[in-house]
Amino acid sequence: MRTIKLTLGYDGTYFHGFQVQANALTVQEVLERAIATVFGTPVRVTAAGRTDAGVHAVGQVVSFRVTGRMPVDRIPYALNAVLPDTIVCYHAEAVSDSFHARYDAKSKVYTYTIDNALHPRVLHRRFAYHVRYPLDYQVMAESATSLVGTHDFASFMASGSAAKETVRNLMRLEVKEEDRFITITAEADGFLYNMVRIIAGTLIEVGRGKRDPDLRAVLAARDRSAAGWTVPAHGLILQEVKY
Amino acid sequence: MRTIKLTLGYDGTYFHGFQVQANALTVQEVLERAIATVFGTPVRVTAAGRTDAGVHAVGQVVSFRVTGRMPVDRIPYALNAVLPDTIVCYHAEAVSDSFHARYDAKSKVYTYTIDNALHPRVLHRRFAYHVRYPLDYQVMAESATSLVGTHDFASFMASGSAAKETVRNLMRLEVKEEDRFITITAEADGFLYNMVRIIAGTLIEVGRGKRDPDLRAVLAARDRSAAGWTVPAHGLILQEVKY
Repeated sequence: MRTIKLTLGYDGTYFHGFQVQANALTVQEVLERAIATVFGTPVRVTAAGRTDAGVHAVGQVVSFRVTGRMPVDRIPYALNAVLPDTIVCYHAEAVSDSFHARYDAKSKVYTYTIDNALHPRVLHRRFAYHVRYPLDYQVMAESATSLVGTHDFASFMASGSAAKETVRNLMRLEVKEEDRFITITAEADGFLYNMVRIIAGTLIEVGRGKRDPDLRAVLAARDRSAAGWTVPAHGLILQEVKY
Repeated sequence: MRTIKLTLGYDGTYFHGFQVQANALTVQEVLERAIATVFGTPVRVTAAGRTDAGVHAVGQVVSFRVTGRMPVDRIPYALNAVLPDTIVCYHAEAVSDSFHARYDAKSKVYTYTIDNALHPRVLHRRFAYHVRYPLDYQVMAESATSLVGTHDFASFMASGSAAKETVRNLMRLEVKEEDRFITITAEADGFLYNMVRIIAGTLIEVGRGKRDPDLRAVLAARDRSAAGWTVPAHGLILQEVKY
């Protein structure tokens, strides 16, 4: 038996999220079927982040245990030959049997992209959330710094989430603009449920001038209703998992 | 009656090209239906370039004649409210009744994008043609200069095309690379059928070291078989029409 670590991307438009569920097509199901085809044996994968319905990935990491002698550098080609166009494997490597894609991750990097032109750019429509009214990205960038650090992010967690421990280390929260696309980059040791999407919704309110850019009071409230709304899934991309 | 000029974009994945045809969904059909809904009267549009099945646009221009008093700056909002997500109107203006979207165009700008990474970048898959083997984009850029100018481009026209006159002025043919995406930008006073896709296929052979970078002999042959193959439609985007 070997433990294999895969890096992969997928277009979340076509899936009801990563994790297997009944009566809905998920990335995990399609991926496990492809791995089973390539290795001739059923497998169960463990993912670094269980992305929601509609969320994309270009740097998702999964691991699984399997027998067989296929050289690791051939695995991406073999998988891509059987995967649909909506999932691509970029890299495979053999790792220690103790490797765990989720627990061993030091940090994850997500981006949330806002198309801030007057009318949506049609070729980016599935990967960017269109906001028609002009946003001040410099104020958003300044505001973002007030969330960086180790804080209780309870205000930025979907209500009804199961998480007991809501302290996270948000190592990086950057806002950049290029050609009227505003990209929010968030890196943390872990994310609460919907955390990036609630942060993005809050920063959009800041960028529109409807909210105080200093978000320390929102953190201190530890109350979901203190933060902004949850922006749609399709602007969110899991970029990278660091180990 | 006013003559209205529209600038629009569309995701060609979903259409059998621009021009109306029986038994297949086209951009023109969907657009004319949206205009009819907004203005309450059937119209026929004239397009600057009748893009093929699978080809995208971010700067297509069409014109039509219509009655009604809607202010032109409201037209994009009204159309986008009834158009599907796959077509977006960016701009509308009233123009002279003598305006003709195709005949009055001074030049058109197309890009052809090649994803030259080892494995296809999944979120660009519908807008870039994946070429796995490494291409030398600098040699391609140098090679491209041998096609710039007013030439007989018969070698770069799909065989069986109806065009009698095959001389065109290719004002610009640039090859640029960023993050292993190679973008070919072509601007001409007019393009023969499949011209950009045949130029791209020829430059890919050059970039792979399988063809002499000096393409003057290909031009001189005036024979389709002297040029490279026709690359797929989905890498092609109509960027701009200049008047």
